[in-house]
Amino acid sequence: MSFLIDEYLKNRAKEVEEALDRLTASALDTPHPIGEAMRYSLFAGGKRIRPILTLAAVETMGGDYKEALPVACAIEMIHTYSLIHDDLPAMDNDDFRRGKPTNHKVFGEAMAILAGDALLTYAFEVLSSVEMPGREKEQLALIRELSKASGFQGMIGGQAADMEAEGKNGDEATLLYIHRHKTGDLLTASVRMGAIFAGASDQELGKFTVYAENLGLAFQIQDDILDVIGDQSKIGKAVGADAALRKMTFPGIYGLEASQKKLHELTQKALTSLNEISQDTTVLQAIADYLLKREF
Amino acid sequence: MSFLIDEYLKNRAKEVEEALDRLTASALDTPHPIGEAMRYSLFAGGKRIRPILTLAAVETMGGDYKEALPVACAIEMIHTYSLIHDDLPAMDNDDFRRGKPTNHKVFGEAMAILAGDALLTYAFEVLSSVEMPGREKEQLALIRELSKASGFQGMIGGQAADMEAEGKNGDEATLLYIHRHKTGDLLTASVRMGAIFAGASDQELGKFTVYAENLGLAFQIQDDILDVIGDQSKIGKAVGADAALRKMTFPGIYGLEASQKKLHELTQKALTSLNEISQDTTVLQAIADYLLKREF
Repeated sequence: MSFLIDEYLKNRAKEVEEALDRLTASALDTPHPIGEAMRYSLFAGGKRIRPILTLAAVETMGGDYKEALPVACAIEMIHTYSLIHDDLPAMDNDDFRRGKPTNHKVFGEAMAILAGDALLTYAFEVLSSVEMPGREKEQLALIRELSKASGFQGMIGGQAADMEAEGKNGDEATLLYIHRHKTGDLLTASVRMGAIFAGASDQELGKFTVYAENLGLAFQIQDDILDVIGDQSKIGKAVGADAALRKMTFPGIYGLEASQKKLHELTQKALTSLNEISQDTTVLQAIADYLLKREF
Repeated sequence: MSFLIDEYLKNRAKEVEEALDRLTASALDTPHPIGEAMRYSLFAGGKRIRPILTLAAVETMGGDYKEALPVACAIEMIHTYSLIHDDLPAMDNDDFRRGKPTNHKVFGEAMAILAGDALLTYAFEVLSSVEMPGREKEQLALIRELSKASGFQGMIGGQAADMEAEGKNGDEATLLYIHRHKTGDLLTASVRMGAIFAGASDQELGKFTVYAENLGLAFQIQDDILDVIGDQSKIGKAVGADAALRKMTFPGIYGLEASQKKLHELTQKALTSLNEISQDTTVLQAIADYLLKREF
């Protein structure tokens, strides 16, 4: 019997959401709407791909994924803050995200900036508060991993390069820089943090990294393709937004066909890399396969 | 001979700035201006009160303050990011800070938002990268302390309450909430983190905390007073800005005289609390005294 990926993703997403709810409930006790604003975007219907990748890496290593839920949630908080800030008028100026009004449309720009800052900050509070007795070095490694992947050399660097490239005729190197960092680094960290949490050796970690890097780039190319040929009702935001902003995309530089070929190649590389991992990699395979075929 | 506080502050500020320079030099290697934007505000002439408080707490505990420089710098990064975001058009809309154009006036709003995000994130990369072999638990405590003090229950919460209160007739409880959290929490954390770094016991930490909390509130009241009666050329921004934005301030609620009285009382409390500390507290005394008398 084949692995039921849809059911797996649904169940894991539900557990991630329950954990996010527990972790952020206290934010509603403040005498101002920051908690409401944080939670609005956290529960706006994301696919939870990053935290699920973390949990899947833990499981693959034979660990108890439930113990890693706070770690997975910290990554989702970083992802969510980046979406809130990216949507701001000064950035991509998006009114809708996943079919709902964006954070600043509901709470105003000031509160949206603060809600993003608060989610970013809280990710590190959560990571530094996880109970990992006797494994403090690994816990510090998780914090280093997440801060680096989401910082100026990682996700923020990719977004900065994206802003700089907008409306210009950029080259292939710039496109790759943007995609690797803006999306790739956090996806890679999601997998790596699961492996680190579960005690992977440096050699094992290297193998998870190859899988994750290929998957991360494939994921972003798929995003670019969906922005051209996707179904607006499925992706929850306007199709063609990248072209309207003159963003650098794979289809924009290589054309649609070559981008689809690249997507398949990278997914294949990710899958092949799993053969190097001695544990059962069914879940990681199924996720790569699912992401290749997704329509949103 | 009395302690030469001016010289002390000048020397420590110089060391903090040199450490900030070393820690952020690599940010200039990215193919986009994020590093330049981060460093623009980091080196825009701050007083470095927070990192100096950290170093002073380490010294008071008998530790080597030079080892704590990265910890002190992480706090200054958090402070700097908060200023960049507070100055944004959607927030306080300030064109000048410390006599220089604000970050978004130089780099544009998008890059200013990202530079703030990057400094926030890098603070945690720096804290998790400090070499504290055998003291990983203390290192994690430093990360918890900074994330909590600057998060939705701390500094960001204070700023959110401040935004909410603007233009409304708030009460005393709201004013205290704003001041305690917006400024107080990070100042308190600055002192506490120095004590934690130097291995303070819970009891010792409690005593440093009393000092820091009184100092933090006094510091903000002094800020409010200077916004009314200060010398624009010394404070580097327009006097009367709070009133123009209808911000809640101590002079606004209690009047100038009562605010000055409160300032003296709190400084006195901070000084008295130092008698409880068995170590030599000359430096912490001198800093409290200096802050009471500052004109900028």
